[in-house]
Amino acid sequence: MIKAILFDLDNTLIDFMKMKRLSCEAAISAMIDAGLTMEKEKAMKLLFRLYDQHGFEDPRIFQKFLSKYQKEVNPKVLASGVVAYRKVRAGFLEPYPHVVRTLMKLKEKGIKLGIVTDAPTMKAWIRLMSMKIGDYFDVVVAFEDTMQLKPHTLPFQEAPRRLKVKPEECLMVGDRPERDVKGAQQLGMMTCFAKYGNASAVFSGADYDISDIEELLGVVGLHEHPTSEKGKKK
Amino acid sequence: MIKAILFDLDNTLIDFMKMKRLSCEAAISAMIDAGLTMEKEKAMKLLFRLYDQHGFEDPRIFQKFLSKYQKEVNPKVLASGVVAYRKVRAGFLEPYPHVVRTLMKLKEKGIKLGIVTDAPTMKAWIRLMSMKIGDYFDVVVAFEDTMQLKPHTLPFQEAPRRLKVKPEECLMVGDRPERDVKGAQQLGMMTCFAKYGNASAVFSGADYDISDIEELLGVVGLHEHPTSEKGKKK
Repeated sequence: MIKAILFDLDNTLIDFMKMKRLSCEAAISAMIDAGLTMEKEKAMKLLFRLYDQHGFEDPRIFQKFLSKYQKEVNPKVLASGVVAYRKVRAGFLEPYPHVVRTLMKLKEKGIKLGIVTDAPTMKAWIRLMSMKIGDYFDVVVAFEDTMQLKPHTLPFQEAPRRLKVKPEECLMVGDRPERDVKGAQQLGMMTCFAKYGNASAVFSGADYDISDIEELLGVVGLHEHPTSEKGKKK
Repeated sequence: MIKAILFDLDNTLIDFMKMKRLSCEAAISAMIDAGLTMEKEKAMKLLFRLYDQHGFEDPRIFQKFLSKYQKEVNPKVLASGVVAYRKVRAGFLEPYPHVVRTLMKLKEKGIKLGIVTDAPTMKAWIRLMSMKIGDYFDVVVAFEDTMQLKPHTLPFQEAPRRLKVKPEECLMVGDRPERDVKGAQQLGMMTCFAKYGNASAVFSGADYDISDIEELLGVVGLHEHPTSEKGKKK
């Protein structure tokens, strides 16, 4: 019996990559407008290569980009990028469709809800509060809580401990098979792969694969439409 | 003859204190909603006392506030404050009325324009680009350019040097008599006090006092209404 559901945050509750891509496109366009001498497509490719190296949370990525690919870091160019990035980001810090009503129904049913994320604590909370969904969660385990990244078992141990449930009473929902699914399984949790957040993964290894977060209602036995094929155990 | 006009940024081109006050009110309300145990009015007073101590550019002021006045820094409370602050700030990063058309007319007349500000370089540029007025300025002298705060003479020397004009061909416009007016006068610049940005100063000591930035057009001999009493030399 599922007593608690733990969610990854980025690309599971929030369409993080869409936000990144659109914010960066706006930033690159604004920087070109302000004097960056590079084609937009090439700039996007090089910028995302830097993100791969330094991580998606790097707050000085545009500075690093200009410093690496331009003669000098022109403050006007840099500021133009930051302003455009922030403006677009604010508009795209939105949860995936059906997130809010799914959380509400799970909560009504008495299921405990938690977040297990590799994001830094403040970034995770800022995203949750921006999306107005912070109050749904009984526990938020972010990077600083254990100083370990998934699939390390510590973050997965910390959430049930604080919720006072056993790991095997938890369902972990996430978009990264090698981190979310694998890490949760090591502790005996049930697992659910958010395939809508990950276009590239083919085999998840999870107990459930879902294409819409609302299918979780079927997984925990809250079927809205009993004939639906969605959210069935594989 | 005035060949260049140098502007202070905060409270001269941008209504910085209004932005701060409204953003902080939103932040305090959001933090109270998320669990801060303090009356709004008292919280505002204590927060602004902290700003006086640590400076208005301190990026960790809410953290310091919670750490000083609450048992613990609750990340949900902190994040709620940051999210509300950012949302309101974006809406109030607007230039004062008539700033854009005044800059445009001065520019048309061939007058060089500059910024001399104590703000950090990136914050200054982000404010300028947010307000879409960065392109009007031939030079921006921010804190890191001289590592000296006004009324030190270095920032006031740097701007004319880069503009290739003499200090006595410059008019400095600012809201702080003891910093903007005094500093510029030490170099022999003409001075203009933006009294709309400073409700408390009584005696400016400047050559001109203006209640609206548009009065600068009169100061440099671009009177729109020749009969106007505005912008006359005192």
